[in-house]
Amino acid sequence: MTRPADDLLATARQALIRVRHETPLVQCLTNQVVSNFTANVLLALGAAPAMVDIPEEAGPFAKAASGVLVNVGTPHAEQRAAMTEAVASAARAGTPWVLDPVAIGSLRVRTALAHRLAAQGPAVVRGNASEIIALAGTGGGGRGVDATDEVESAAAAAGTLARATGAVVAVSGPVDLLTDGERTVRVANGDPLLTRVTGGGCALGAVLAAFAPSAAPSPSPSPASDGDRLAAAVAAVTVYTVAAEVAAERSSGPGSFAAAFLDALYGLDEDTLDKRAAISWT
Amino acid sequence: MTRPADDLLATARQALIRVRHETPLVQCLTNQVVSNFTANVLLALGAAPAMVDIPEEAGPFAKAASGVLVNVGTPHAEQRAAMTEAVASAARAGTPWVLDPVAIGSLRVRTALAHRLAAQGPAVVRGNASEIIALAGTGGGGRGVDATDEVESAAAAAGTLARATGAVVAVSGPVDLLTDGERTVRVANGDPLLTRVTGGGCALGAVLAAFAPSAAPSPSPSPASDGDRLAAAVAAVTVYTVAAEVAAERSSGPGSFAAAFLDALYGLDEDTLDKRAAISWT
Amino acid sequence: MTRPADDLLATARQALIRVRHETPLVQCLTNQVVSNFTANVLLALGAAPAMVDIPEEAGPFAKAASGVLVNVGTPHAEQRAAMTEAVASAARAGTPWVLDPVAIGSLRVRTALAHRLAAQGPAVVRGNASEIIALAGTGGGGRGVDATDEVESAAAAAGTLARATGAVVAVSGPVDLLTDGERTVRVANGDPLLTRVTGGGCALGAVLAAFAPSAAPSPSPSPASDGDRLAAAVAAVTVYTVAAEVAAERSSGPGSFAAAFLDALYGLDEDTLDKRAAISWT
Repeated sequence: MTRPADDLLATARQALIRVRHETPLVQCLTNQVVSNFTANVLLALGAAPAMVDIPEEAGPFAKAASGVLVNVGTPHAEQRAAMTEAVASAARAGTPWVLDPVAIGSLRVRTALAHRLAAQGPAVVRGNASEIIALAGTGGGGRGVDATDEVESAAAAAGTLARATGAVVAVSGPVDLLTDGERTVRVANGDPLLTRVTGGGCALGAVLAAFAPSAAPSPSPSPASDGDRLAAAVAAVTVYTVAAEVAAERSSGPGSFAAAFLDALYGLDEDTLDKRAAISWT
Repeated sequence: MTRPADDLLATARQALIRVRHETPLVQCLTNQVVSNFTANVLLALGAAPAMVDIPEEAGPFAKAASGVLVNVGTPHAEQRAAMTEAVASAARAGTPWVLDPVAIGSLRVRTALAHRLAAQGPAVVRGNASEIIALAGTGGGGRGVDATDEVESAAAAAGTLARATGAVVAVSGPVDLLTDGERTVRVANGDPLLTRVTGGGCALGAVLAAFAPSAAPSPSPSPASDGDRLAAAVAAVTVYTVAAEVAAERSSGPGSFAAAFLDALYGLDEDTLDKRAAISWT
Repeated sequence: MTRPADDLLATARQALIRVRHETPLVQCLTNQVVSNFTANVLLALGAAPAMVDIPEEAGPFAKAASGVLVNVGTPHAEQRAAMTEAVASAARAGTPWVLDPVAIGSLRVRTALAHRLAAQGPAVVRGNASEIIALAGTGGGGRGVDATDEVESAAAAAGTLARATGAVVAVSGPVDLLTDGERTVRVANGDPLLTRVTGGGCALGAVLAAFAPSAAPSPSPSPASDGDRLAAAVAAVTVYTVAAEVAAERSSGPGSFAAAFLDALYGLDEDTLDKRAAISWT
């Protein structure tokens, strides 16, 4: 049974305004394939990306950052050391950080790394169904970054993972599922073209990091309470996937879509968000 | 003397359908400059890119991958180790792999690396004329990634290299030349704008890896026999360069061309391929 | 007091023609986030990018290159070693090289690196106001790549830095300021969308390296003398920021802007440069 989520929509609207107004500084330790697109997504949204991912810099920077993204997609040795440093520093400083366990499962280096990091208090874990199941330890892994499991089949694993780590877990797919281990929200926005652009999932991790410190107070008493991390994550996913819908209508393939998506994030207004958002409590 | 190559065109048509249907998993160990564009080209085409390029992961992954690309454009030490591992593993598992000897000649690290790898059984070697001549050991190197030699001047070197390595050799240029050391094919498609987008050549290496396991049986007895690696490589080059022609007609420069090219790969239909393909046996 | 700079505009016009005609080979040791965009900017302009940034290759290549860019945005250990090698080699060979001290100030690795490199004779130093102030040692650092200081507040630091290093110093912002320590030029072109595309500043560093060896003789006696490095840097900045203006008029956000910017660099003609250039001696 689902019910509408006007409270979450209100939070999303305010969170978008806040990000644009406060320009959160988002430190990204992410994979080389998507670093450019990720930075451009953050810039389009009004956040300030900083790809600081070497030892001796990553730790100190994580103290000052508004949010941190750790994406294990191309985890070279030096970057792994920087990730360890950044996560420890973020934990000490209270900086919210997002873990994206890209393609974990059978790939041993990143799988071990992601498990170790997941135990250190991420604010959000974002992945596709295969990755979330692999990180929760409740099933096999994927064959890369595309989801071979369906989102709904990962619902139980997401709940388990959220309770075990204290993180909000966001499972990406045609309908995104988000849970804090007790409450579950679904966001039915987006477009398949987002899966035809590399970084379509990874850049969402950065947006989650941008929104994490920006959860707006709800305008009225609601299940989405002040400073609610689940609501902040839902805001990020909704803004991101609504922009994808807008972009898809102006595209004729993945190349024009990628450009239109950045334009849509840049120009997204509250009316469009209101009209299109398909958020529901379950 | 040239003659038309309806058999190769038929293979190209079927190979395109196959790639879209089977979503080959293409592992890319490629240079940092073009990893994003390369992944986007594969996604646009319907293949699944996986940029797995660190030691301990690259080897195991190459066993499961449909095809592997090894591009030496920015060969950092850790990636060189991963390349060695991936190639050994691909060779053992029978995974076809493509070598792109970017800018070899006078640059010593990559030149030594490419020569060493070339001896380990690539399915395809792709490069511009300068690079193919340098790898064949029959002349000097280029000054970077742009071809200072003409394609036709590399024809003999390409044949020598194909016979020495057992690979299909694809020389990129205004008219692409492909040879397995006995037979030679020319593909007269493409557009100069492809040389104004970084990765315009490199991403073709990934497409060759996507098509390598997908060579479709020819519909009738022909020089392009079942599972023919030359025919598969010709298919990849033809699809790629025909899409470039379509994109160029919709572009006003290299920026709009890059987006239109991804759109064209995504939307390429068999009729367009039939009408535009300019393949000939020599 | 400012006065028009017809001499500098004439130089810019000729320098653009020269770059297109001579295809300078620009070696980039730059950050991973912007390497793709940087290469595409150089290609759009008619230059030849070469991202040669590993030890044993970077040094020899810098001898043959027309210009070198050293950008410390993601200074991994191996790349730092290559930068040291490239700069030493460029200095010996007389190859002009550009230093971009991205986000220096409080980040210790890059800050130490940039200070060390700055002492080795860069032809140009390019940064935002915060970075130039930090490198000159006359104030604090920024919080990333966005300028927290205004350009004009960095004018004195830019002069100090130019005199200390012998470099032309280019401070990027709404109005760019360039100085060789004695003379100062302002270029009032550009568009805010350039700050919404990652690499919008970094790629200018590569363009400065492309123009450094191409300073055209002035057509008449003027403060911009033959082979004048200040005039060459002004040419690069003017071409770059005028193209941004043209692109902004054809864009609906940062995604379409990035593509239109590459198109505009590719298609920029002398008339447009003449009509739009807003260069002034101060």
